[in-house]
Amino acid sequence: MKRTFVLLLLSVSALAQQSASTAKERWLLTADFYGSTRYFRLDMDRHDAAHVTGSFSGTALTGSLDGGHLVLHGKDPDGSTTEIDATLTGESLTGKIGGVNPGEPPLSFAFKAEVVKPLAKGTPKTHEFTPTVFYRQFSPFYKPVLTVKPGDTIHTTTVDAGGTDGQNIKRIAGGNPQTGPFYIEGAQPGDTLVVHINRLKLNRDTAGSDDQLVQSALSPGLAIKTRDNNKSIQWKLDLEGMTATPEPVGEHLKELKIPLHPMLGCVAVATSPSSAPPPTGDSGNFGGNLDFNEIAEGATVYLPVMNPGALLYFGDGHALQGDGELNGNALETSMDVTLTVDLIQDKRLNFPRVETEKQVIALGYSGYLDDAFKDATSNMANWLMSDYKLTPSEVAQFLGVAAQYRVTEVADRNSGVALKVEKSVLKNLR
Amino acid sequence: MKRTFVLLLLSVSALAQQSASTAKERWLLTADFYGSTRYFRLDMDRHDAAHVTGSFSGTALTGSLDGGHLVLHGKDPDGSTTEIDATLTGESLTGKIGGVNPGEPPLSFAFKAEVVKPLAKGTPKTHEFTPTVFYRQFSPFYKPVLTVKPGDTIHTTTVDAGGTDGQNIKRIAGGNPQTGPFYIEGAQPGDTLVVHINRLKLNRDTAGSDDQLVQSALSPGLAIKTRDNNKSIQWKLDLEGMTATPEPVGEHLKELKIPLHPMLGCVAVATSPSSAPPPTGDSGNFGGNLDFNEIAEGATVYLPVMNPGALLYFGDGHALQGDGELNGNALETSMDVTLTVDLIQDKRLNFPRVETEKQVIALGYSGYLDDAFKDATSNMANWLMSDYKLTPSEVAQFLGVAAQYRVTEVADRNSGVALKVEKSVLKNLR
Amino acid sequence: MKRTFVLLLLSVSALAQQSASTAKERWLLTADFYGSTRYFRLDMDRHDAAHVTGSFSGTALTGSLDGGHLVLHGKDPDGSTTEIDATLTGESLTGKIGGVNPGEPPLSFAFKAEVVKPLAKGTPKTHEFTPTVFYRQFSPFYKPVLTVKPGDTIHTTTVDAGGTDGQNIKRIAGGNPQTGPFYIEGAQPGDTLVVHINRLKLNRDTAGSDDQLVQSALSPGLAIKTRDNNKSIQWKLDLEGMTATPEPVGEHLKELKIPLHPMLGCVAVATSPSSAPPPTGDSGNFGGNLDFNEIAEGATVYLPVMNPGALLYFGDGHALQGDGELNGNALETSMDVTLTVDLIQDKRLNFPRVETEKQVIALGYSGYLDDAFKDATSNMANWLMSDYKLTPSEVAQFLGVAAQYRVTEVADRNSGVALKVEKSVLKNLR
Amino acid sequence: MKRTFVLLLLSVSALAQQSASTAKERWLLTADFYGSTRYFRLDMDRHDAAHVTGSFSGTALTGSLDGGHLVLHGKDPDGSTTEIDATLTGESLTGKIGGVNPGEPPLSFAFKAEVVKPLAKGTPKTHEFTPTVFYRQFSPFYKPVLTVKPGDTIHTTTVDAGGTDGQNIKRIAGGNPQTGPFYIEGAQPGDTLVVHINRLKLNRDTAGSDDQLVQSALSPGLAIKTRDNNKSIQWKLDLEGMTATPEPVGEHLKELKIPLHPMLGCVAVATSPSSAPPPTGDSGNFGGNLDFNEIAEGATVYLPVMNPGALLYFGDGHALQGDGELNGNALETSMDVTLTVDLIQDKRLNFPRVETEKQVIALGYSGYLDDAFKDATSNMANWLMSDYKLTPSEVAQFLGVAAQYRVTEVADRNSGVALKVEKSVLKNLR
Repeated sequence: MKRTFVLLLLSVSALAQQSASTAKERWLLTADFYGSTRYFRLDMDRHDAAHVTGSFSGTALTGSLDGGHLVLHGKDPDGSTTEIDATLTGESLTGKIGGVNPGEPPLSFAFKAEVVKPLAKGTPKTHEFTPTVFYRQFSPFYKPVLTVKPGDTIHTTTVDAGGTDGQNIKRIAGGNPQTGPFYIEGAQPGDTLVVHINRLKLNRDTAGSDDQLVQSALSPGLAIKTRDNNKSIQWKLDLEGMTATPEPVGEHLKELKIPLHPMLGCVAVATSPSSAPPPTGDSGNFGGNLDFNEIAEGATVYLPVMNPGALLYFGDGHALQGDGELNGNALETSMDVTLTVDLIQDKRLNFPRVETEKQVIALGYSGYLDDAFKDATSNMANWLMSDYKLTPSEVAQFLGVAAQYRVTEVADRNSGVALKVEKSVLKNLR
Repeated sequence: MKRTFVLLLLSVSALAQQSASTAKERWLLTADFYGSTRYFRLDMDRHDAAHVTGSFSGTALTGSLDGGHLVLHGKDPDGSTTEIDATLTGESLTGKIGGVNPGEPPLSFAFKAEVVKPLAKGTPKTHEFTPTVFYRQFSPFYKPVLTVKPGDTIHTTTVDAGGTDGQNIKRIAGGNPQTGPFYIEGAQPGDTLVVHINRLKLNRDTAGSDDQLVQSALSPGLAIKTRDNNKSIQWKLDLEGMTATPEPVGEHLKELKIPLHPMLGCVAVATSPSSAPPPTGDSGNFGGNLDFNEIAEGATVYLPVMNPGALLYFGDGHALQGDGELNGNALETSMDVTLTVDLIQDKRLNFPRVETEKQVIALGYSGYLDDAFKDATSNMANWLMSDYKLTPSEVAQFLGVAAQYRVTEVADRNSGVALKVEKSVLKNLR
Repeated sequence: MKRTFVLLLLSVSALAQQSASTAKERWLLTADFYGSTRYFRLDMDRHDAAHVTGSFSGTALTGSLDGGHLVLHGKDPDGSTTEIDATLTGESLTGKIGGVNPGEPPLSFAFKAEVVKPLAKGTPKTHEFTPTVFYRQFSPFYKPVLTVKPGDTIHTTTVDAGGTDGQNIKRIAGGNPQTGPFYIEGAQPGDTLVVHINRLKLNRDTAGSDDQLVQSALSPGLAIKTRDNNKSIQWKLDLEGMTATPEPVGEHLKELKIPLHPMLGCVAVATSPSSAPPPTGDSGNFGGNLDFNEIAEGATVYLPVMNPGALLYFGDGHALQGDGELNGNALETSMDVTLTVDLIQDKRLNFPRVETEKQVIALGYSGYLDDAFKDATSNMANWLMSDYKLTPSEVAQFLGVAAQYRVTEVADRNSGVALKVEKSVLKNLR
Repeated sequence: MKRTFVLLLLSVSALAQQSASTAKERWLLTADFYGSTRYFRLDMDRHDAAHVTGSFSGTALTGSLDGGHLVLHGKDPDGSTTEIDATLTGESLTGKIGGVNPGEPPLSFAFKAEVVKPLAKGTPKTHEFTPTVFYRQFSPFYKPVLTVKPGDTIHTTTVDAGGTDGQNIKRIAGGNPQTGPFYIEGAQPGDTLVVHINRLKLNRDTAGSDDQLVQSALSPGLAIKTRDNNKSIQWKLDLEGMTATPEPVGEHLKELKIPLHPMLGCVAVATSPSSAPPPTGDSGNFGGNLDFNEIAEGATVYLPVMNPGALLYFGDGHALQGDGELNGNALETSMDVTLTVDLIQDKRLNFPRVETEKQVIALGYSGYLDDAFKDATSNMANWLMSDYKLTPSEVAQFLGVAAQYRVTEVADRNSGVALKVEKSVLKNLR
């Protein structure tokens, strides 16, 4: 088994790349890879019993399917080999995969597989869901709280970042507890989950925050000036006028009635079962704690699916958040959330993207802003190359005049940058 | 002379801090400090011939002024001493300053001084100015090309970053050659120069750019994908429709007509004569190559004055620039520029600020975005504390909800971040 | 309950700060804090049945202990209150803690507690341990594989980063699988775990690596030059001569016999049960994947205990690693490991430290080197202030002449910096 | 003239690349390029009067040399053209260069040229030099203070960073005033200057420093803890015992006698005359304020020549400096300096390198450590590829096991990283 295969084992990120095949059948394999669950795709074309061709993680396979006994083998230019030996029973395939990479211990692990079927959309449905548990990791191991179909709408509630609900009752320890996970029927690793935010309704008249500035915002001089900042700040939310005022209010902020702009701090899919589930304060290719104030009503979030069912989580509502989330907390509050989910099959994202009424937005998150900036730029460049077919030269020319960069947050382990482009400009790309 | 004095010698940054004095006279001292010119301020109160008090770089002085012979001395708690011995002739003061800091070699240097007078504004005037020289450093050593008064308007032209003018003639080697320096009457170190941009009129129908991406935008993966980008790109400017199209145009950009938004890449004052004049590609507390696309028509730029006359430079016009200035070049072109200058006396800025119709903007520039972000935050925090009297706690609360962060550029030695706040929100601060 | 208490809930980091008390009894509380386990310390002094005083998370308490019924309450200057209501049965205390912070929902949660006893050291023992399971998270939730006493020695083996053992058998999926966790009797949150590495014996003659350079080492130019690097490299280990040679060996490396220097890439304690267990590729205050080539034979690692028993993990042996771990992999191999554990009670570290024969070393790990540098500096400054009683001014003077900074690694999510000081210089500090 | 030519105009960095030609004559052209002086090389082969071939900035030229009238022209694949029209008089060539890049204004500028002759080394000589001026910019515009030959030795003195000499007399304003520039006969742009430091003898018994920590070393927490640090510290140098002790000495540092290790903070060549001369606190491809404590007795520094004569500067002696130069100042003092200069013709460095008795060292300097780390890695990778012929794969394998990274300084605008490799390991590369 060639080395690149081993790399693929670490992530589903390359799954969809071979999707343009003419293979008649596409199988999702669930493997027990030396103690961890990993997903692979097997493309297969049954010519006749003695002649089956296929592809597995980029390696071309040939073999036979005789009386339910499937045998496939392949060899790559670097000398690595792959062997599949499996039994087909109805729509279920179970067996073993063996592989040898030169100079490494041989690999052998069991799998079971099922056929990936085309998406059958029904009549969209709205689900009323009242959460009773909240989770603090974007884990693939929690039982889904509800199963919905692509096109369906979910109406539910979220607790605030500290675990307090709309009745001001603390339900769970803080740290961005999430509502979910929701299982999206038909979602498979390699697909893109589409989450459209219809409505974010505030359901209480307070939000919690503080008066500190996060480390990433503090020069030594400002750290010294603000060294006595150490207060919880309660913000009073005027749900009619949709403004907020801090309490207790300092002398100079007395007249401050700042317009509310409800948003979700977290939208995520569960991460791969082969790696440690991240805490709900973290972000990455799975989305997560993005703390981006344009993930608000009307926005659509695109996330790369890494598990069957996608396993959607969301929470950490902010009544309002300035760029950077400078206090570590925004105006943290509970919410009534209405969102519609959908799927794009076999379209693979490296990193989350967002679409608003007027803009498309590529995100980048990293330990520091300079890398988040590069990541957002790569994310958008890939988008322009794949969806708009721009050449690398055209990408550079276009972004040189069209790029808008905004800092999303610097409050967490990752800092984030959003690269935004106007749809009015994009529509002139051919 | 105490150690803090020595620090002050390095910069004029603390000059205005003692300005709230009741001193009857304020003198600007021009000193020959061991081979470099440095500016100091001496505040002085003549009680009678035998009794003069004053303050120099934070040290309280006492002494006498007898028949034109001024003697002042002071001693600081750390044991450092300051001695001034000078001759007053009319409105001119010349003499020597001596000082001893414990454990350091004694200091002694000559100065001449003139009284700082209140600003006398006349009727504003518009100056038509045709540049014949262009400079490539923000230097205090070039002869001013024109002297204007606070309130006056300058109408002139700039060459593009490569030194080419509106007739497409190369006038000077590239690297952001500037128009200026303009001497603003009455401007003194410690003041703030106000530059209001009335009009940026394009004066030719082409702009030069390229198809590269700057290092700070390139992840290793994107560097590899764009490794063959290596072309000059000429942009055709439609001066009626105010749009731009690249030439030769790639297949997918054929329909691109992107709206122009003329801006000045550079606005600067000359730097202190005691330090090396920076090249016109650099930025700092003097402003300089800020490459911020909101420094456009209608914007006002505030810069800290570091030399008598301020010595204003500007240039590096961009017909359009995306955030980041990703190609290293924006749409580089020549311009007709109209701007009005003004002064705020005795108001000291640490770093440039910008005001647009709807926002106030604090800038931060540093070798990397993470520090530029901190610098912009400090700049705005200082602004809110000094002009709006917010406490450190209030600053944090306010910025937590009101901050908007945008990346200005990552194309030069410094990267820049702009922290923007809506005036509509600011006006509610008391 | 005051706000700082709520902050303390998030970490045990402040536990030991009140340890200088004269309290007769010190209890470790294990609380079920809204679904997560958290540890607290309660200091208590029983004057008589009607009069008990104590301290909990910095709040002074008073109350009574009447017939096994303990009642304590406290109020902080900011108006927050704490109430403890518990039952004492023998050496076990169980009950509830309630608290109110102004403007926040009231808190109430159950706990059980046991008395913290002075450490009773016995005769040191050596444990032979053959691992049968390996873990890929530094989790407090895995069952300890062995219990040892402070002073005891553990002799065991580790698999390589890819999960392959000394017989070249793949035992588990890769990603730095660890041997452990080992339970250290008497270790409590707030203590320091001492891990002395006696012996790191290579137990096979191969190590796996590759020819890539990690992203954090790649400028755009070097990324382009090395874009075809994509090979696994097997290194042949000469266990007699203690040198390594790559296979297949490039023409110019044929004569390369580079001296081996075995080290442990990972040494860690389990993280707090209130947060998501990190993957074994991560690093932090718990230690973890430090990838520092001075964590070798003879070195002592100091780690902050966060769980009863500390729960020690180690693994990811490297036969040799250059600074930076530039290939992502070092020379990854399995090992025979002998180490001795010990405890320093009530000494709290913010971050791991290392001691070698001639140096003391403070570590810093962060998303980027610039912050890791600051973190290592803070870590050492705290060390000098707490253990050597230096004033902040003395810390600066001392580090200005004595600091040695080395990059440990840039291969993982965190990059690391080691600040090293010679013991020969340190010993002159009074 | 093709676009790459225009790029070359900005720097001499590509000059030596065409040096492997068989051209009979090599000329150094000094051009007046639209107001700035730039250096180019013209390679030329006179076949007969009617047939001359050559190469200029990578463009192949053909033409004639008839009765002292030289005409050459070339055209590149992208359509750009180059024309040279010049007069040959004895060994002097003067004329004009014209060029057209498609879509850009035509270029035309005058030049004069002289033949580059092979280096004629004589008997090495030692020059005693007593400086009377000191400079605060690494400028090509100052008159050389002395001309020496490759192989010669210079014995002279330097003032400290504050401008004070060995007699404790302040000679010039502070900011690292330099001794020099020294003109090295035969040095041409494209060569490498070799500076071997024979002896750094302390010539007074005091050094100045302070108790502050620079911004790049300060986390917000450490900034707050050290906020009152604000003292000058005088260090007493024991020139016999070669140790230092601070004065006034804090209680805990009383016994501190830290071994001295004299070094030069600055070693530099003058920068290109086409760009603004940098201040002596800056660093870059010219070397400059490197503040690397291994630039000490016995070290050899390699610098890329950018001007005829190289124009060597040095100064900023430190009696001792910890890594990072954490106080902004090291132990700043004056020195007796003895160094030997040499030349490597036609060998072009992108960035300074250092060699010590046991190691070769590639430097990287940038606005932040993460980029300095990448730059040092690129610098060493280029070194291994050019001098040791390693392939990119071999470079990665080698550095993966052999790299040692040390932080040089974080006190200036650039932070620095040194990548060090043992010569004992290097010598096994074939």
